[in-house]
Amino acid sequence: MEVAIREVGPRDGLQAEAPVDVASRIALVRALARAGAREIEVGSFVSPKAVPAMARAAEVFAGVADLAGVVRVALVPNARGARDALAAGADELTATLSASAEYGRRNVGMEIEESLAQVAEIAALARGAATPTPLDVVISCAFGSPYEGDIPPADVAALATRARERGADRITLADTTGMATPRRIDAALDWTGEDVGLHLHETRGTGLVCAYAGLQRGVTRFDTSIGGLGGSPFADGAAGNLATEDLVSMLEDMDVATGIDLAALLDAATLLAELVGHALPSAVSRSGPR
Amino acid sequence: MEVAIREVGPRDGLQAEAPVDVASRIALVRALARAGAREIEVGSFVSPKAVPAMARAAEVFAGVADLAGVVRVALVPNARGARDALAAGADELTATLSASAEYGRRNVGMEIEESLAQVAEIAALARGAATPTPLDVVISCAFGSPYEGDIPPADVAALATRARERGADRITLADTTGMATPRRIDAALDWTGEDVGLHLHETRGTGLVCAYAGLQRGVTRFDTSIGGLGGSPFADGAAGNLATEDLVSMLEDMDVATGIDLAALLDAATLLAELVGHALPSAVSRSGPR
Repeated sequence: MEVAIREVGPRDGLQAEAPVDVASRIALVRALARAGAREIEVGSFVSPKAVPAMARAAEVFAGVADLAGVVRVALVPNARGARDALAAGADELTATLSASAEYGRRNVGMEIEESLAQVAEIAALARGAATPTPLDVVISCAFGSPYEGDIPPADVAALATRARERGADRITLADTTGMATPRRIDAALDWTGEDVGLHLHETRGTGLVCAYAGLQRGVTRFDTSIGGLGGSPFADGAAGNLATEDLVSMLEDMDVATGIDLAALLDAATLLAELVGHALPSAVSRSGPR
Repeated sequence: MEVAIREVGPRDGLQAEAPVDVASRIALVRALARAGAREIEVGSFVSPKAVPAMARAAEVFAGVADLAGVVRVALVPNARGARDALAAGADELTATLSASAEYGRRNVGMEIEESLAQVAEIAALARGAATPTPLDVVISCAFGSPYEGDIPPADVAALATRARERGADRITLADTTGMATPRRIDAALDWTGEDVGLHLHETRGTGLVCAYAGLQRGVTRFDTSIGGLGGSPFADGAAGNLATEDLVSMLEDMDVATGIDLAALLDAATLLAELVGHALPSAVSRSGPR
């Protein structure tokens, strides 16, 4: 069995930290590529005022343009961001859509309908680019919202369908504030099917167990963040992403291939801890491999 | 479905901390009982020189003697400890047996044969007590050892059988240094059957996912520690136990009954954080319930 890991540390991880300079962000992406990461979210093209840590993303993309065999992903909030990302050489775009109306208002200041219209604009730009570029729409708060509570899985699946109708090539379900549990993973997949990615957080310590529940159902795409960094600056109680090394460590033991070398990944984690200047929340970066 | 949680925080959690006074240890046990914990490891009857935090365990037992509906458990290393525990009013004894020969030497300074002989002595005392008292033998390093690496599941099951032959009423498999994974849980249960308890750690972030794997197989007994405190002072790289609140939170969402009230449990965690003077490692004590 094989699983595709999208490494989101350079974006989702670093965006919650004090800004790290461009050369260091490039070094992190290169260390992750050396460890075998095949898909890396390199940065986001958002307002540097809103998210200072993601400023100068184009320079980071330029610094990793030579990496072979790596899909460089850019998170984009709107058409302007999509144009910038495509110009910077992104191989894949991600855009977010909130299953929680209130989270969407606070996170991007938009109603769900407006976000869907943005998705359509971004998808049109991605498809019309010199090199047509896939778009993955990440549905945030897919397993619950700190504002509305549980979100009915049928509503999440309907939103996924609408995003696909507007040009999304892939869908990822994000547990933005750590409300997913194995039961909620099962319930969501009953409605969406298994051809979705899972983007999990450890807010309530359920990231790894939810990944396991997803794996058991046949999900093969996971977003993880080196060191377990992350967490939205816009959601109370959000905590770090599922750590790449914690998932890879478990998958290795299950004989599930990821292409990632755990020892080299832990080297990247050591570099990351130096860059952010504090210990990382992931377990395996502290304990070492089995 | 119902699951029995044995709360080990007052013993396994506090033994790794700077000593907490007797009145505070009593207050913690009472707070856990208020939250609905039905089985609580109140302390251990070990040398106060070896484990200063467990000194004066008899006084802690005396301070909780009036609690109704709570099984008060004592960890005992040998016959002397068993006599003291029975005199102090313990309702259940636990004794450890290491699946790793080297860990056994370092932890209790005994070979496996000597430990088995101790189990027989302890079991005889427990059965011969004025009130016959059950003995649970906890097999440490059941999913791997920092010294020998993986321990063959057949060897662990054989050790469980030998412990039962020497009078153990129950067996618990302990992941002392966080080497368990869902695969190793499955492999162990293939040999031991599901009538075992699981004592899991979060050293590599796998405590909750291993509990889930055990639940799926039909295991119904789990050791957890309030706040996720714990870790053996005798094993490099050991980290906290699976946190009671993290497991209860997931079980609640799965409609699995534990008798524990999560809000009251989080009150006990708040008390514990005050007693030990630092933040707790568990996720749900920081994030709050879903």
